[in-house]
Amino acid sequence: MELKLCTWPEVEAYLSQSQGIIFPIGSTEQHGPTGLIGTDAICAETIALGVGDQVNALVGPTINVGMALHHTAFPGSISLRPSTLIALIQDYIKPLARAGFNRFYFINGHGGNMATLKAAFSETYALLADLNIQGADQVRCQLANWFMCRSVYTLAKELYGDQEGSHATPSEVALTQYAHPDHIKSAPLEPQVAPSGHRIYGAADFRRFYQDGRMGSNPDLATPEHGKQFYDAAVKEMSNGYLKFLNG
Amino acid sequence: MELKLCTWPEVEAYLSQSQGIIFPIGSTEQHGPTGLIGTDAICAETIALGVGDQVNALVGPTINVGMALHHTAFPGSISLRPSTLIALIQDYIKPLARAGFNRFYFINGHGGNMATLKAAFSETYALLADLNIQGADQVRCQLANWFMCRSVYTLAKELYGDQEGSHATPSEVALTQYAHPDHIKSAPLEPQVAPSGHRIYGAADFRRFYQDGRMGSNPDLATPEHGKQFYDAAVKEMSNGYLKFLNG
Amino acid sequence: MELKLCTWPEVEAYLSQSQGIIFPIGSTEQHGPTGLIGTDAICAETIALGVGDQVNALVGPTINVGMALHHTAFPGSISLRPSTLIALIQDYIKPLARAGFNRFYFINGHGGNMATLKAAFSETYALLADLNIQGADQVRCQLANWFMCRSVYTLAKELYGDQEGSHATPSEVALTQYAHPDHIKSAPLEPQVAPSGHRIYGAADFRRFYQDGRMGSNPDLATPEHGKQFYDAAVKEMSNGYLKFLNG
Amino acid sequence: MELKLCTWPEVEAYLSQSQGIIFPIGSTEQHGPTGLIGTDAICAETIALGVGDQVNALVGPTINVGMALHHTAFPGSISLRPSTLIALIQDYIKPLARAGFNRFYFINGHGGNMATLKAAFSETYALLADLNIQGADQVRCQLANWFMCRSVYTLAKELYGDQEGSHATPSEVALTQYAHPDHIKSAPLEPQVAPSGHRIYGAADFRRFYQDGRMGSNPDLATPEHGKQFYDAAVKEMSNGYLKFLNG
Amino acid sequence: MELKLCTWPEVEAYLSQSQGIIFPIGSTEQHGPTGLIGTDAICAETIALGVGDQVNALVGPTINVGMALHHTAFPGSISLRPSTLIALIQDYIKPLARAGFNRFYFINGHGGNMATLKAAFSETYALLADLNIQGADQVRCQLANWFMCRSVYTLAKELYGDQEGSHATPSEVALTQYAHPDHIKSAPLEPQVAPSGHRIYGAADFRRFYQDGRMGSNPDLATPEHGKQFYDAAVKEMSNGYLKFLNG
Amino acid sequence: MELKLCTWPEVEAYLSQSQGIIFPIGSTEQHGPTGLIGTDAICAETIALGVGDQVNALVGPTINVGMALHHTAFPGSISLRPSTLIALIQDYIKPLARAGFNRFYFINGHGGNMATLKAAFSETYALLADLNIQGADQVRCQLANWFMCRSVYTLAKELYGDQEGSHATPSEVALTQYAHPDHIKSAPLEPQVAPSGHRIYGAADFRRFYQDGRMGSNPDLATPEHGKQFYDAAVKEMSNGYLKFLNG
Repeated sequence: MELKLCTWPEVEAYLSQSQGIIFPIGSTEQHGPTGLIGTDAICAETIALGVGDQVNALVGPTINVGMALHHTAFPGSISLRPSTLIALIQDYIKPLARAGFNRFYFINGHGGNMATLKAAFSETYALLADLNIQGADQVRCQLANWFMCRSVYTLAKELYGDQEGSHATPSEVALTQYAHPDHIKSAPLEPQVAPSGHRIYGAADFRRFYQDGRMGSNPDLATPEHGKQFYDAAVKEMSNGYLKFLNG
Repeated sequence: MELKLCTWPEVEAYLSQSQGIIFPIGSTEQHGPTGLIGTDAICAETIALGVGDQVNALVGPTINVGMALHHTAFPGSISLRPSTLIALIQDYIKPLARAGFNRFYFINGHGGNMATLKAAFSETYALLADLNIQGADQVRCQLANWFMCRSVYTLAKELYGDQEGSHATPSEVALTQYAHPDHIKSAPLEPQVAPSGHRIYGAADFRRFYQDGRMGSNPDLATPEHGKQFYDAAVKEMSNGYLKFLNG
Repeated sequence: MELKLCTWPEVEAYLSQSQGIIFPIGSTEQHGPTGLIGTDAICAETIALGVGDQVNALVGPTINVGMALHHTAFPGSISLRPSTLIALIQDYIKPLARAGFNRFYFINGHGGNMATLKAAFSETYALLADLNIQGADQVRCQLANWFMCRSVYTLAKELYGDQEGSHATPSEVALTQYAHPDHIKSAPLEPQVAPSGHRIYGAADFRRFYQDGRMGSNPDLATPEHGKQFYDAAVKEMSNGYLKFLNG
Repeated sequence: MELKLCTWPEVEAYLSQSQGIIFPIGSTEQHGPTGLIGTDAICAETIALGVGDQVNALVGPTINVGMALHHTAFPGSISLRPSTLIALIQDYIKPLARAGFNRFYFINGHGGNMATLKAAFSETYALLADLNIQGADQVRCQLANWFMCRSVYTLAKELYGDQEGSHATPSEVALTQYAHPDHIKSAPLEPQVAPSGHRIYGAADFRRFYQDGRMGSNPDLATPEHGKQFYDAAVKEMSNGYLKFLNG
Repeated sequence: MELKLCTWPEVEAYLSQSQGIIFPIGSTEQHGPTGLIGTDAICAETIALGVGDQVNALVGPTINVGMALHHTAFPGSISLRPSTLIALIQDYIKPLARAGFNRFYFINGHGGNMATLKAAFSETYALLADLNIQGADQVRCQLANWFMCRSVYTLAKELYGDQEGSHATPSEVALTQYAHPDHIKSAPLEPQVAPSGHRIYGAADFRRFYQDGRMGSNPDLATPEHGKQFYDAAVKEMSNGYLKFLNG
Repeated sequence: MELKLCTWPEVEAYLSQSQGIIFPIGSTEQHGPTGLIGTDAICAETIALGVGDQVNALVGPTINVGMALHHTAFPGSISLRPSTLIALIQDYIKPLARAGFNRFYFINGHGGNMATLKAAFSETYALLADLNIQGADQVRCQLANWFMCRSVYTLAKELYGDQEGSHATPSEVALTQYAHPDHIKSAPLEPQVAPSGHRIYGAADFRRFYQDGRMGSNPDLATPEHGKQFYDAAVKEMSNGYLKFLNG
């Protein structure tokens, strides 16, 4: 059930059954010479819709742009500042909490979002309490990173070993190939496996070290069939995660 | 060309040909008993993709949540505060302007976004100048509302006359039916044509007057075939609008 | 009745009769070689005082500086950023709403303020609701642009035809001549009728195209006698507008 | 010379002679049973215009609403939050500094503005430096409180002794009587001399102690003739102050 | 009693006896060639702990960084912007007010903090009222500058006469020598008594005039023994000040 | 070397040798019935000073209050909102980066700070780049949590096994006992080992589950001798960490 495809009376009816909602959150940022700029949003959204189907949960609109300031030296990358993203999360949750939602499950496709989302959750809880919103003390948010699912991690290890890397990884590229089989890109990768080991600081520093944008990965290993495997693993594990969150 | 489906080297290549980009912006808000909550985002995105195809323009990620504070008394509605949306627009444009983009064309599906977007454009121009960003004085943003296209307006008048109304209109509902034929909703509308004439103030006031969320409309008149007509009209007119903007 | 000339017990007494208040809002920005920098504030204030007299309404302090970022490449222009103006409007309305006012009528003299004011009203309604202010859901703000009064528009058309233009117009200059007959300026205008047709983007772009600051206008046509006519028309029409707002 | 009554070429010409500008800043707040709500703005503006005439300085638009949060329990009082006022001051100064102004002289009519204005000046200097605005390091702001002029203080002591008090004082009331002789109010004062000695905290606390809004004053002593004396003293002393500031 | 050395049940017990808390606030900024960068924080903290002991008051964590933007042209200086400091103060007070504290006594070591703190107090009172926090109208903050104690002032005059100056003063240096006798610095002072009389504007302007950072002072006169005297005087006077505040 | 005990010429000299600086950051929050409210700040500061000594690094002022919103239902807890902490970090780093520092090493004592600090670093890098600060692209911040040192973790496991828990842990309590042997508290703990396994959401939710504030820990196991061991381990490991950061 996508929120965007519901009417408000349908939401009202849903709320009498469940107070949970899933938000896919990704990023719009470079993913190396062959990875799609929308990789993180595509992965999060694809999995979230799968989870939504599996557990009959409402899926809110995808947050397509996240915290990717360190990627902005590559053309086409967009980012919210953390303080903007914190404001955005508060704005999203406030009316939904007033409407009766109290379990917010964020299926996240981008490591760079994690810190800011956690900070945003904290600030949101305090805001809801400050505003004396009914049921404020029942509101819970959870960050769920599909790429950190145990089953996903194991599968990536199995398929790619050390060449999984940490950005523009074959696993996420595979998932986008599964989701968009007509948009599989190819380009020479030099070196075949990208360098790694340099921490993330500012955008210029990032590009100086990670010259084509990849971090430690060899996305040439990705196939749409792998993508299907990652999709299945993630949907299964995150469906359980959502139910546990709902009932926890 | 969807930005999300491009790689960064493709964006770099695009920039050597064009400095324009299209952003669909919608809203996530109630659209009456039968209209989809994602109506405005669906319409904006659908048309933007059509325009992008027509004129070979890059289409950025859809801004799914806009300024809909006055709808938030209906469950499922989400809104950014204007000041958050202003910050978001600045965050979106800043890295893209640094990368070389200077024509930002916002295809908008929601009347409630108009004021804030215009304010945001002004604040963005000043910010880019304040930060001494190269080419700041060449950056231009344009707000283009599909529902205000002359051809769309004429068609709506022709098809629906006085029953078009101004929120949850048959024209926008028709367009969502064309885009999502498997999500056509039906529910009793009482009265058949919603009341109108009350200005928009706060959320509680809105719901007090517009009890089922519609404003002056009879969305039962919508058909997917109409939707196709609206789509064709809007894509054609906005493609011209975009090219004029680019070359103006 | 000017708020500034009242005592607080007089305001208290007024509130037992009426909950309406008028705020003139203008701008401090260039108005071409012969237009006063305070034109928009002068016009708004002059008319607001006339309306206040006509309908026995309280008139708050004039907001002299508005949203004029696009004029700031001309010396003497000042502007609030939209986000500052939004904060200011919230600050103005919050204590007055607490005191019992619930009809805020903004008589506006500057097109550039419109978008930000509308955004500000939306954010203010939500803030008052968030803070659980008593009567929050009764608060209404209205934007009333004197230069868009039908009677004013008709008169301008009649007197100036195509030479009215859209900035540093003879109608607004005439009104300032009526209000400040001892400050009628003259300077050569080249060309006599300013260019037009270029949309408004950033400040540098604006000045590049509109070199002396005027947009499509020939302010030499203005006379103080015209100013009186504009004043009378606007006061009459806006007095009706205010009463309708109050009772609507 | 009022900025509002100048054209931009006149400002340009002025800048070739002087880089100074005066801003009157007041407040819109209760001034006891007989003091005008606009007292502080009226006093600041009246004196600023006098000083402007005396020293041929440009006088910007009056900042009518200041920091008066502690007065907001009385109807008709309006206040900016300090953080809004800080943003406003930055917005005012930024374009003027870009245009070449570098001496900003704030003639202030309200004690409650002092702290926030000083804070705002500090934040503004840093902002101008942050933005690499040309001449940023030459920009200076000065706070000049008319009610703290030595000559004013002496005169008030002489005329009113202990009954001057510190809010709704006979000296400021006298000045408004001089400026607006047709708006002299009268009402019973009980006690004749208001209580004093309680520090200023929040709005509710203020009103609890200062029940009619006055602080230690007996405004019945005021006369328009006194007002003229205060006006003359303040204009003379502040004219000197301005020139010293300009040349200092 | 230092808050940092208490457990929460001890705070709970304390609150049943007293609702007062002391916050030392200093600055991290240059203090001339021989003054410690932490001078203001050291002085405030040292005295606050003394006062806390004297009157059995809880002493909160020292605010080590204050508003010192004008010192930032000297290496090692740090400053909050006023708007950040205002936010910080609100954040500090909000949870403590909710817990039952209502007397906040800020022992301040830095003149540059005064304006912003006063502004912050005003904004905080309004925030607490806006959020309907229980007891909001009983909350009071007081700014207490140790260097403005009458006894301190008299002693400084006595010991140093005109060479006390106003920044990097022998009195504050003496107090740090008393607190940190192992960190007494020596360096040539040229001139022996620093220049004075130039107002404070931006950081570059400050350093241009006050080349080694001192303002009118001769810190060579300081001794740890003097420091002890200042400490005793300040603790005594401020203990009385705190008790008066608590009971006032 | 503590920054607070240096003069600015000493900082200038230091900068010619090193561009690194260490900031201890803690929190002011409940730590169960026997843990000190300042635990996190005490631990971070104690270790940071040890590291500073070991590697001759400058140690900045301790950030005593961090992100502890979820602890604020216990009296004595204070917290910055994440957005305030982000602003604070930017304010701290900006002037130091201008002065030439480019390695900022945050020794952190509180898990709740981690997310916000990471977000703050990202926003700071972007800010420095936006402001065209010289050397902006060389600035690096690193978060170093003493409690996550491998040696610390191993030691805690060894000493406390499962009773280490995750808040008000015996390891951090031990370290405070070592630092403040005269402030060792005792109180009955019921149950002896606190409950665990409940995620952290808002403050009310936290207290509902973690009734005395501890999370899974048995702080009675702590001794000052353990504290010394933790101190030694952390200082050694973090000294290496700092040097690696500096040279990395």
